[in-house]
Order: sequence, then structure tokens, then C-alpha cells
Amino acid sequence: MSEQAKAKHAAPAATATKAATPAIPFEYSNRVILKAVLESGDGGLGLVGRRFVIGGWVKSSKEVRKESVAPSKVDVVARETDQSLDVSCSEILQSRIPFIRSIIKILGGSNYSVREKLEPVIAPPRPPPPSVAFLQVSDGSCASSLQVVVDSSIAIPGHILPTGTCIVAEGELKQPSVEGKHVIELKVEKVLHIGRVEPDKYPLSKKRLPLNLLRDCPHFRPRTTTVASVMRIRSALTFAAHTFSQNRGFLCVQVPVITTTDSEGFSKTFKVTTVLEDEEVVSLEVVKAAMREKKKIVEDLKRTDSNQEALDVAIQDLEKTTDLASQLEAREKHSKSKSSSIKADKKPQEFFSRQAHLTVSGRLHLESYACSLGNVYAFGPRFSASKVESPKHIAEMWTVEIEMAFSQLEDAMKCAEDFFKFLCKWVLEKCSSDMQFVLKRIDRTIIDRLQSVISISFERISYTEALDALKKANKKVETTLEWGTALTAEHLSFLAEEIYKKAVVVYNYPKQVKPFYVRLNDDGQTVAAFDLVVPKVGTLISGSQNEERFDMLSARIKELGLVGEEYEWYLDLRRHGTVKHAGFSFGFDLMVLFATGLADVRDVIPFPRTHGKISN
Amino acid sequence: MSEQAKAKHAAPAATATKAATPAIPFEYSNRVILKAVLESGDGGLGLVGRRFVIGGWVKSSKEVRKESVAPSKVDVVARETDQSLDVSCSEILQSRIPFIRSIIKILGGSNYSVREKLEPVIAPPRPPPPSVAFLQVSDGSCASSLQVVVDSSIAIPGHILPTGTCIVAEGELKQPSVEGKHVIELKVEKVLHIGRVEPDKYPLSKKRLPLNLLRDCPHFRPRTTTVASVMRIRSALTFAAHTFSQNRGFLCVQVPVITTTDSEGFSKTFKVTTVLEDEEVVSLEVVKAAMREKKKIVEDLKRTDSNQEALDVAIQDLEKTTDLASQLEAREKHSKSKSSSIKADKKPQEFFSRQAHLTVSGRLHLESYACSLGNVYAFGPRFSASKVESPKHIAEMWTVEIEMAFSQLEDAMKCAEDFFKFLCKWVLEKCSSDMQFVLKRIDRTIIDRLQSVISISFERISYTEALDALKKANKKVETTLEWGTALTAEHLSFLAEEIYKKAVVVYNYPKQVKPFYVRLNDDGQTVAAFDLVVPKVGTLISGSQNEERFDMLSARIKELGLVGEEYEWYLDLRRHGTVKHAGFSFGFDLMVLFATGLADVRDVIPFPRTHGKISN
Repeated sequence: MSEQAKAKHAAPAATATKAATPAIPFEYSNRVILKAVLESGDGGLGLVGRRFVIGGWVKSSKEVRKESVAPSKVDVVARETDQSLDVSCSEILQSRIPFIRSIIKILGGSNYSVREKLEPVIAPPRPPPPSVAFLQVSDGSCASSLQVVVDSSIAIPGHILPTGTCIVAEGELKQPSVEGKHVIELKVEKVLHIGRVEPDKYPLSKKRLPLNLLRDCPHFRPRTTTVASVMRIRSALTFAAHTFSQNRGFLCVQVPVITTTDSEGFSKTFKVTTVLEDEEVVSLEVVKAAMREKKKIVEDLKRTDSNQEALDVAIQDLEKTTDLASQLEAREKHSKSKSSSIKADKKPQEFFSRQAHLTVSGRLHLESYACSLGNVYAFGPRFSASKVESPKHIAEMWTVEIEMAFSQLEDAMKCAEDFFKFLCKWVLEKCSSDMQFVLKRIDRTIIDRLQSVISISFERISYTEALDALKKANKKVETTLEWGTALTAEHLSFLAEEIYKKAVVVYNYPKQVKPFYVRLNDDGQTVAAFDLVVPKVGTLISGSQNEERFDMLSARIKELGLVGEEYEWYLDLRRHGTVKHAGFSFGFDLMVLFATGLADVRDVIPFPRTHGKISN
Repeated sequence: MSEQAKAKHAAPAATATKAATPAIPFEYSNRVILKAVLESGDGGLGLVGRRFVIGGWVKSSKEVRKESVAPSKVDVVARETDQSLDVSCSEILQSRIPFIRSIIKILGGSNYSVREKLEPVIAPPRPPPPSVAFLQVSDGSCASSLQVVVDSSIAIPGHILPTGTCIVAEGELKQPSVEGKHVIELKVEKVLHIGRVEPDKYPLSKKRLPLNLLRDCPHFRPRTTTVASVMRIRSALTFAAHTFSQNRGFLCVQVPVITTTDSEGFSKTFKVTTVLEDEEVVSLEVVKAAMREKKKIVEDLKRTDSNQEALDVAIQDLEKTTDLASQLEAREKHSKSKSSSIKADKKPQEFFSRQAHLTVSGRLHLESYACSLGNVYAFGPRFSASKVESPKHIAEMWTVEIEMAFSQLEDAMKCAEDFFKFLCKWVLEKCSSDMQFVLKRIDRTIIDRLQSVISISFERISYTEALDALKKANKKVETTLEWGTALTAEHLSFLAEEIYKKAVVVYNYPKQVKPFYVRLNDDGQTVAAFDLVVPKVGTLISGSQNEERFDMLSARIKELGLVGEEYEWYLDLRRHGTVKHAGFSFGFDLMVLFATGLADVRDVIPFPRTHGKISN
């Protein structure tokens, strides 16, 4: 890296406007937030001598015998690195330094290491030798963790050492007795709470969990440093999106999730219903009858002296059925006390008068507010039931939509660019420590990339120019690309990554590749739509000036064979007081991808919903 | 009103921190935002002489003959009031001042009045006499409207006068030639766009539309002053909710809308499916056959010289069928070109592997993030398929949820109170002109009520104390109220409105009236739940310290007969690294009700979804 580039990387940390630092102690708990200690400028040195209650989860740990509290060289190495480590911290360390790996292996596994001589396991029980536990504790408020020192006289080491243990403790902030990475440590005087883990069953105890395996435990993965950093960045971006909009006078409108309007015309949607049969309705009577049957079988088997195995199976089966029966009984009892009218409505009726589905896009609804309040935005979940797997699109994603009355295509493109630049700037300024983590552990070019977005003006080309550029660079794309065909995600990415090497705005598409509501240009062939395409992620923003002329829109709806009455309300906006207006949809989850250098939206969405997969 | 109360009312306007005022002109359009002109401190006087493009919709209008441009007394009265008027401005004026009503009636309806002598309608056509149109134009950015003056030589008065007309015009800002309410007016030199209305069909042309009728046109109602003000206040509250949370270090987590977890245990939910049959799948062949049939009938009728009426009906019927056929034909053609594989997947399969539904509450999912990131919040739509009609609860509502690890019931109650107070303060400070409108037109006690929330500490009582208080005041409530029964909405409102006359926090409820996840208190009978109840609205916030002990939670799930495996992931949070934590759900829509003095959430939600009703 050049000196200049290095300076650029250092800049955000140095010039960062501090994100709001919580008060010490936090006002809704008796603990301090670790961010307030660890990111207090001097790394917490100014707070030495103060007494605090802290709480958090153990990221990694080490137990050191009392007679040798001064850690050996191995310990120091381990501690020096673990502040930037992921959940799999000790595992990565092992894989990198074979020497340490073998030592730790001998000392009893990867979760935590105990420095003691290998003694015969069958030795007579005796009080464990006094020791000190060094815990790296994180409370999720920042990327760093605090070194927490607990004497074995205060808490049983085996209870607090496993990764994932929750600890709440009171103590004094001190300078470490031994030199190392840490500027401060908490010397614990009293342990207030221990939330233990079962290391065998805790998914994050396992070795080296890559992101795709972490997806199987979405309820635990924010405990890893990577996912926690990503989610903090996501939270900052959420606030940035609102701040950009509100500071420019845009009004937030919560458009509906349940709708009868198909915003895109031919979308695959999730239907919403209340009359679906429960997958398996088991009546208590049936289960009780089965239970009696099975009881009989068991007794028959007992009487006839048949083999033990068959009897065991039958007993097990009976137990299962008995369990189910008592569960159903409890359930029925409870639901009766809750509402006695359950039996009354025999014939279930659909909740809404018309078939409703989950919204694909909020833009049409938002238009109605733009055509009265002027400049508006929405921020909410949007849905697609397309079963095509993609690391960029899943069933439930969050989108920011903006709509501006009295504005045109050019205005929407400008606003989209400003919006994107604003978010990039915000992340660099407000998330400096998390971005340092991303830089070190995920993507070494991330800060360069974000800074270049802020400083460079984007390429703006028409669809026709994009087609020409792709044809010229035809080594990698098909030469069969004819005017009128849709540009694929690959085409668009190629423009941003290979040809222009920066964000590209493509506008004026052929009308057949864009939704029915986009405004027809004077050439009669193209429409006033645009896409903002960025390297690595692809299309981040899609926007358009929408058709404000009643006749044009009405004809287009007819031409495409859309169900006309579904769009009557939308046509109404052109019947009465119509106005030119433009806007865009901003893929919020894709923005988080762009800001974190990750490749799959499932890793930046708290509970991703994909085809066939839903676990909670 | 006392002098003191008056002074209090004046305070917010005087001390208001100005909400971000958009630049002049707005950066993504060539027009200026009217708020930037009308709320620029001196009402725009400092901008006199500047030339602007403005855009907006006509709220009310008046045409004045050239020879009498100086408006008569009647005109002045009308103009003096119309700045604070609703869509039904002229109608209300009419109902209040019978004299004006009769005059306007004579002059041709309520939408706009033309000051001219009553002339015979059958007079030979001749050029209309020169006149000046005075339009009250609003662009939705603020409660006030701008007086826009258009000479009949620039635009045909009949095109711009109707309520709801959209106009974009260029002109010079001047002091009004005639003294009146307005400080400034725009003298138009060029009209750039007119979006006409069809007054007969435009729903807001009708006389006096009360809020419940406005619900039938959710896509137009933000053009009324009342709904526009409410939506601006709603937008400000949205930003306030994020600002409160982010400034205190809470991280925003977008919890999923589609879920398999029933957060309340026995909720009526909306199922999400992709295999539902389309309500009426009409095949093109069937329609074509019907078309042929109908053609035959028409021809038979023609041949047999039957009566004209029957023939007309038959022809109309045929036309409908022909339309449907061509619509289907276009649709089929288009969907074939979009995807040729539609016919392929004959047997539709459910999208998710398990039965999914729309989330009732995000708190359980949010807990998993609290148990790793510490303090988190969510803000999104929540759903209930309960068919019970209520002005406080409908199918889709937005909720703020907060969850804090290392915190307990007491902390959650404190945070809930602070949150509520913060929002009340924000509205008074940032929405002063809209609040002045609310004060004048909706609720004369609104500002007093909001200010008392900020300054007074809330009453905090246990469920048992609440019960005693209700029994003591037993004139209005049943005396059969026994310990253990749920308090109804009426009971809770009675506490806040009649007994304590302020916000009341009720805590420690009997376990059977609260969800399964609430923490059992040491008495074994009550749980650590609370409700914050406010006058007029009722329960605004419901919160709890949730059960962190595995055995207790697991037993409760079993006791209630809940489907255990659905909650395995939730129990996991207690298996590994459990911690005390507390939080709450804040009914955002109810907060908008509280801040605007309205009575029905359907009037503060952009597109309300209720049983049987969905129109777009």
C-alpha cells in the first residue's frame, strides 16, 4: 500500500465524529457500556481507578496458575491478537501458528486452554490450585473487548471460561499488571451473574465457523465479532438513511406491507390468508384413542413375554403419544379460557374482501403521498416469492424508496447519487472502529472503495451507450446483445467493474424491460428509468420518472394485459391534479453489503428468509 | 383559557427549534419548497422581490373581475380564514356564516366561487371578461398555503380554479396589493404546468368530508390539511423514535416480518403462502367460447326484432366479454415472453419448508440480538388477524420494540417513560405550525396535554393497587373484579382518565393474563410485566422483564401447551449465556393518535388495513 493510501486509511479513525457515546453508567442498567470505556479516546486510561459493573459475553479466555501469573510468551501472543479476533479466534490462531496449535491441543481443546501440567486424570480429587482467569468480554456495543480478570477464589474457573458465557461483574479498572495489547483491564471483586454455556451444544463452540454455517444459527451469530460489526454498521446506515431524508425535508410514509396492488405487474408474490388449514390438526379425541390402543399393545407384550426390544419400542411409542395428549389437553384448556368462541366460527372466512399479498415495492403507494405532500420516503420490508437463488436477492429485504413531485429523471438520478454518497460518508465517519475491523478481517480495499465513491463523480450513460460499450469490450460478453434486450446483472457489473471501474448510472431503457409505470420518452421507444450500478454489488438503486399522463399510462396497462381495476386508484392520481414526479428504490441490504465487503445478503440481514429456509 | 395557559400555548411556536429548512430552491427540482418561503421567520417578507418557481395543489380559490380586483368585505373574510382551513374549508365557512353560504351557493357551488353578476346561461358565446384568480396553493411541506395570483390572460380560470388542481408556475413574490391575512403572494408570470381535476369525479370536491369518509380514498386524503398535518407529525415522530434510540446507543435491528414463531402464544395470524389458488382463474378458451355464445344471442335478438332494451343489455354484455378476452390475450402473450417456464411447474410447492405467518411482535427475535449486542431496537410493521373491530387496533400497525440485556423491569419502565416524554417534547419543538393547526381544528387541549406529559412524573402502581383503586371508585366499574382477571381497556383508561388524571404505569400482573415469556416474580403468582396507559388513547406501551431461567421458561411453555419445537431457538438463548433482560413494545400509531388528538388509528395510518377492507 502506498503512503498516501495508508494516510487515507488512517483518516476516518482520526477525523471521525464520535457517534453518541452512552453515559457512564448506562441509564437503564447498573452496568457501564463497554464502548464508553474502550472508545473513550485514550482507550480507557483516564478511567483507571474507577469502579464499575460490566456485563458481556466471553469471546475467549485463558486460565493462568497463581504461581505463574506473569503470562509466558505464548500467552502474550494470544492476547495480542484476540482483540481483533472473530468467534473462531483461538481456532484461527491455531491454524496460523502450528506451534501454538499443538500446545493448546495438548492442553485440552480449542475453547479455552488451561495452563497446567499434564497429570493423570484418575488422581484423587483435591481442591483445584488457585488460578486467575483472563476473559475477553464483549457486550456488543463495539468491536473491542475488555480484559476481565477473575481470581479463582471469586468464581469457579470452569464456569466462566467457556466461550459464550455471560458474566456480570463488579471491579476496579486498572492498568494491566503485565504489558500487552491491553491498555486497561477490569480486576473483578464480585461476580454478580454467570450465564453458563453447554460447550458441547453451543454452536459457536465449534471450530472455525464460516459465515455460511453461521446462517444456521441466526439467533446466536451476532455474538461473533464479524456479524456484530456488520449489524452495528447496518444500524448506523439505518439512521443515516432517515437523517439524509429528513434533513432534506422528505416526509417518512409507512406504506403498507399487505396490499392488493402488484407494483411491478407480473411479480411472484406471497399471498396473505387466514383460511389456510393448519398443517396438521390433531384432535385430542383421536390421540386419546391411539393412547388406549398403545397401552393395550404394551400390556399384551408384557403378558406374552415377548422380547424386551419390542416392548421397549412399544413403551417409547406410548410415552410419545401420552406426551402429545397432555400437551393437547393443556392447549385446549388454555385456549378455552382465552376465548370460548373458537368452536363458533365453523366456516372460516377470508380476512380481507380481496386477495391480498405482501408488497413487492412501495413506490406506487408512495406516489400517492408525493402527489400531495411533495417529497416523501418510505423505509420498510419488501417481498418477492421468486425461487431463483441469488446472493443478492432473497424473499424479504428492506428498501428505502423516495418519491418527489415536481421532479424529473435527472433530479431522481442526482438525488440517488447524493443519497449513496451520504451513506458512504456516514459509515466512514460514524463507524470507524467497526470499519477498521472490516478492513483487517474482511476486505482490505473497503475504505478506499468507500472514499472513492465520495470523491469521484459517477459515469452516466444511456442504455444505448452501455450497449455500445459492452459490444466494444466484447471479449467477455456475448456479441448477440441486441438493442431492446434487458441487460443482465452480469452486464451491469461488467460496466461498473471492468469498463468504467466506478459507479455507473445507466438510463433511458427500452420500454419493454422496465415496469409499466415508467414514463415514455419522446422517442416512443425508451422510458425514463435508471439503474445505479456499483462494483462488487451490482444494481444498488433503480429509479424512474413515472408516467403522469393518464392516456399513456392507461394504454400501457391495457397493452400489458394487467388487471385494470387493480390500478384504478393509481390512475386516479393522473385523473385529478397530476404532476411530473420521479423517484427510486434503494436496496438497503445491498448497501450494507457494499459497506462491509461481504458477498451474500444473508450475512447482513438479521434473520434472512430464503426459499425453503425459515427456522424461527 | 387562563393567561397562563395561553402563554404556554404560545411557547412552543416561539421557542421552537426550527426543523431542517430545505434550501431555496430545492436541490432536486426547479421549484422552491413552500415551507422554506412561508416559515422563514418573517412569513416570507424578506423574500419579496425574488422570482421563484412554485408547485402545489389548489386548496381553495376565488376569481375576481378585473374591474373590482380590490376584494369586497366578503372576500377578505374568506381569505382571512382559509389559511387554517381543511379541504372542506369553504364548506365549513358556509356552515358557520349563513350569509356567506347563501351568497356562495348562488354563485355556483362550493368548490370555487366566481364573482360575477348572474347572467342568463344561454347568452351567446363571447370572450370571458378579464379576471384574476386567487389560488391558495399548498405543496404539502407545511400547514400554510401560499396565495398565488394568476391573471386570466395567463391561464384559463376554469382550468386552475377547481380544488385539487395541480399548478406549477413562475412569478415574483410580492406584498399583497390588498391588505388581508397574507403577508406575501406570488404574482404569476408564467404557468408551467396544470394538472386539471374532474370536479364531478374528484372525491375531495364533495362537501364537508368527515374523516371516516376520507378513509374511502386513502390515496387522496393526504391532500386535506388535516391528514397532511397528521402525516407530517407522524414523519417527525418516526425520526424522533430513531433519534431517541440511536442517541442512547441502541442498535437498530430489522426483525423479520415472515416468521414461524408465534410471539404471543395463541395469536390469530396471517398465514403466508405461495400455493393458494388464484381467486378466479379464467382461461382464455372459456372466455372466447362465451364470447361466441353472446355474439349469437345478439344476432338472434337483432333478427327477431325483440325490444331495444334487451338488445342493449346483450350488446353491453358482449362488449364486456370481448374486453376481457382481449385483456387475457394480451396478458398471456406478455407472460409468455416474460417466462416460458410458467407451464412447467405444474405442482406448486410451498415456498418455505414450514408454515410461516406475519409477525405479531418482534420482541422474541429482538431478544436474540439483545443477548449479543446489548441494547437494541426494532421499528416495523406488526400484524394481527383478529377480526374484532377497534379504533385502536387494526390488522397492520407499526411498532417500536426495545430490548435491553443486563436490565430489569424497573429499567424498562424508566426507559419507556423517557421514550414517551422524548417524543412528546419532539413534537412540540419540531412541529409547531402543524401543532397550531391541530390545536385550532382538532383538539384545543392538545398542547396542554403534551406539556403535562413532559413535566409531570407518571403514577406507578402494581396490578393489585390498580384493582383496589378501581374497586374504591366502583361507581363506574364492576364490583365483581377479582384478583387474577385481566384489566380491560376500559379499566385501564379509567385509571388514567378518571382516577389519576395522568399517565399511569401498571406493573406486576397475574401471570395468566400476560404472555408466556414474562419473568415470574418471587411470589410465584405475578410476572414482571407493565403497561403504560395514557388518557384518551389507553395502553401505549406494554413491556416486561422476560424469563431468563431455562427451567422456568421451559415449564411455562409446556404448561400452556405451546408447540415446544417452535420455541427451541428461543430456549437456546437460556441454554447458553443467559442474562436478565427487559424491554417493551411501543404502539407507534397510538402515539400519533396521542399527539394529534384524533380518535381512530385509521386516520393516522397512511393505508389502513382492517377486517374486510383493503382497496389498494
